[in-house]
Amino acid sequence: MKNKSSNKPLKGILVLEFCQYLSGPSAGLRLADLGARVIKIENPGKGDLCRVLPIKDQWVDDNSLLFHTINRNKESYTANLKSGEELAEVRNLIGKADVMIHNFRPGVMEKLGLDFEKVQKYNAELVYAEISGYGKEGSWAKKPGQDLLLQAMSGLMYASGDQDDAPTPFGLAIGDILCGAQVVQAILAALVYRKRQKKAVRIEISLLESLIDFQFEMFTTYFASGKLPKRSAVNNAHALLGAPYGIYKTTNGHIALAMIPLNDLKQILRSNRLNEFDQSMIFSHRDEIKSIIFDLIKEQPSEYWIEKLEAEGLWAAQLKNWQELKNSDSYELLKLEQEISISEHKKIKTNRCPIRIDGEIMWGEVRAPRLGEDSENIKEEFNLKAAHL
Amino acid sequence: MKNKSSNKPLKGILVLEFCQYLSGPSAGLRLADLGARVIKIENPGKGDLCRVLPIKDQWVDDNSLLFHTINRNKESYTANLKSGEELAEVRNLIGKADVMIHNFRPGVMEKLGLDFEKVQKYNAELVYAEISGYGKEGSWAKKPGQDLLLQAMSGLMYASGDQDDAPTPFGLAIGDILCGAQVVQAILAALVYRKRQKKAVRIEISLLESLIDFQFEMFTTYFASGKLPKRSAVNNAHALLGAPYGIYKTTNGHIALAMIPLNDLKQILRSNRLNEFDQSMIFSHRDEIKSIIFDLIKEQPSEYWIEKLEAEGLWAAQLKNWQELKNSDSYELLKLEQEISISEHKKIKTNRCPIRIDGEIMWGEVRAPRLGEDSENIKEEFNLKAAHL
Repeated sequence: MKNKSSNKPLKGILVLEFCQYLSGPSAGLRLADLGARVIKIENPGKGDLCRVLPIKDQWVDDNSLLFHTINRNKESYTANLKSGEELAEVRNLIGKADVMIHNFRPGVMEKLGLDFEKVQKYNAELVYAEISGYGKEGSWAKKPGQDLLLQAMSGLMYASGDQDDAPTPFGLAIGDILCGAQVVQAILAALVYRKRQKKAVRIEISLLESLIDFQFEMFTTYFASGKLPKRSAVNNAHALLGAPYGIYKTTNGHIALAMIPLNDLKQILRSNRLNEFDQSMIFSHRDEIKSIIFDLIKEQPSEYWIEKLEAEGLWAAQLKNWQELKNSDSYELLKLEQEISISEHKKIKTNRCPIRIDGEIMWGEVRAPRLGEDSENIKEEFNLKAAHL
Repeated sequence: MKNKSSNKPLKGILVLEFCQYLSGPSAGLRLADLGARVIKIENPGKGDLCRVLPIKDQWVDDNSLLFHTINRNKESYTANLKSGEELAEVRNLIGKADVMIHNFRPGVMEKLGLDFEKVQKYNAELVYAEISGYGKEGSWAKKPGQDLLLQAMSGLMYASGDQDDAPTPFGLAIGDILCGAQVVQAILAALVYRKRQKKAVRIEISLLESLIDFQFEMFTTYFASGKLPKRSAVNNAHALLGAPYGIYKTTNGHIALAMIPLNDLKQILRSNRLNEFDQSMIFSHRDEIKSIIFDLIKEQPSEYWIEKLEAEGLWAAQLKNWQELKNSDSYELLKLEQEISISEHKKIKTNRCPIRIDGEIMWGEVRAPRLGEDSENIKEEFNLKAAHL
């Protein structure tokens, strides 16, 4: 048991992660960050396929940097779930667990005899969480539940970029991350619930539901107006918000303008081109107003505008890239990085869990496990073979 | 008490929400979705400023559609926290609560005497959660913690769009939503923890930490390589993934191609322009490969490509807008909408909580409260005045 954190809130909770890639493992990571003991149950051949999914061709050992980053603080137990004996050992382990999570396609766990109905027999108080791409019914149910494909099918690609741009994906795995976060919410709510009701709890969620929930503003507005939201023609940052909401080019960079009352902005821009517009027109004349602001902002450097805007307490910011952010004192003070030792000579640096509890950062500095490296210890600790015989 | 759901997991948990706009209220919404009783503590003048923040100029009554959407299933209690008597009543209410959340700027709750140190005196087992923009120290601490500004300052705008595009914001309030989701995780973990440790728990999180956590792939790669991630020159969908990952134009729309092995894609595209590239070059020659694929895909309709790709089990999808999604059978089968009655004659339609528990959808159909409409009932139910006298 590697996650020795003494006073993290989920200490003593045992989680089995039958997951691969990002959605399920990101949920396991957060539970581990918060103190749970998380055991990955992996196929003895290749294990979690994320082990061989590189980002920017970065590898740490036989496993990709991506795998190392989101599987830190976990253990690895390998089992061939098609072998009766190994499956029986896994069932024994399920009997000791508080939570199990899987993100296989619908039908896979049923075939293995590890679906909720059957697993309850081995653990009458288990929290059982299932992640799918599109739910279990309908013509999409068997489609691959991959993040970009879900972005494509959920309408999300019409949220970013300008009106005449091609559909623009979010440049990170937003569906996986949101769905993983929501599974954690549901699992923890079920653990609170279990205090009162001593029974097994089943949780179901799909990436499609997560991405639709995320777009609640788009859908609710569409339902109310009957019209599909339209990205602004210039400087879109949110298809439903009025002028000046957006990113504006300056002579030496970019600035962001959030909800700034038009009259306040007029005082700073000092151009009579804006005279004919007032606050009541920020939706109806959004794109015209934004175009004029665009023309005015680009004539001066970022610092010039930010100084004037901040002096009036208006909501604006100068854009930073990752390097500029890293050099800020807030980044330094928040202690946003942690170092993880992979071997005697190899370390990687990652971000940490964003949550602080009782003033303590939830560090998670134990490296990701090599495939199956904890199997024997776990079998012994939980007496899995003996229980089977 | 309006949220009468009988078997939701958080039934019996009382949450006080001292929050405005989106990050804190989205956390309150999820807790309410899962069965908690959530009371908004609002200023008697204007209340949560989100009440007057419209999206696409959509209003339901005196309050915006946005406010109604994310404050359903809650109660509203108004108190002037600068009045000794009203503050004393709120303290009495805090004494009865399980959880309180605030998203005021650092210093505000301290001035009111409602900071964690003081509030523990009234409730020795309270879970106290604080959301800030940038933490409490450093030169950014007092800056407005608004979503677009945080996107601008966290590097996130260099994740979407193509390499030569302007910095591209995520077209939804990603910082608010992620931070709200993580606060819920921390609150629920603290409630699990409270089973063992009968003590007050303090949770702190900032939008900046949430957005950095979200970008863990970008940061970890940057730390490992020393180089800033670069969006691809064409069809960027994730700056760290190799070809063909992206969105491609067809004669009649767009398709998404996720991680598809180059050899498999060559079989389908059948062009000798790809002959000189193999799988080992998907990072080093990412942009050249993507450009060629772009040229080939645009010659045929979406259906032509999707049929061939799906026949081989390759990860591809045809883009859908919100309307096309709404017309799919998966959308129908997942029951993704709910109707909320605002008044006898007025209903709105929204999405629902994405989580199912024991096969039940966590519906939340009670309308958002009018400002202060529950104050008197709450005072009476909890005997707030008597306890004060």
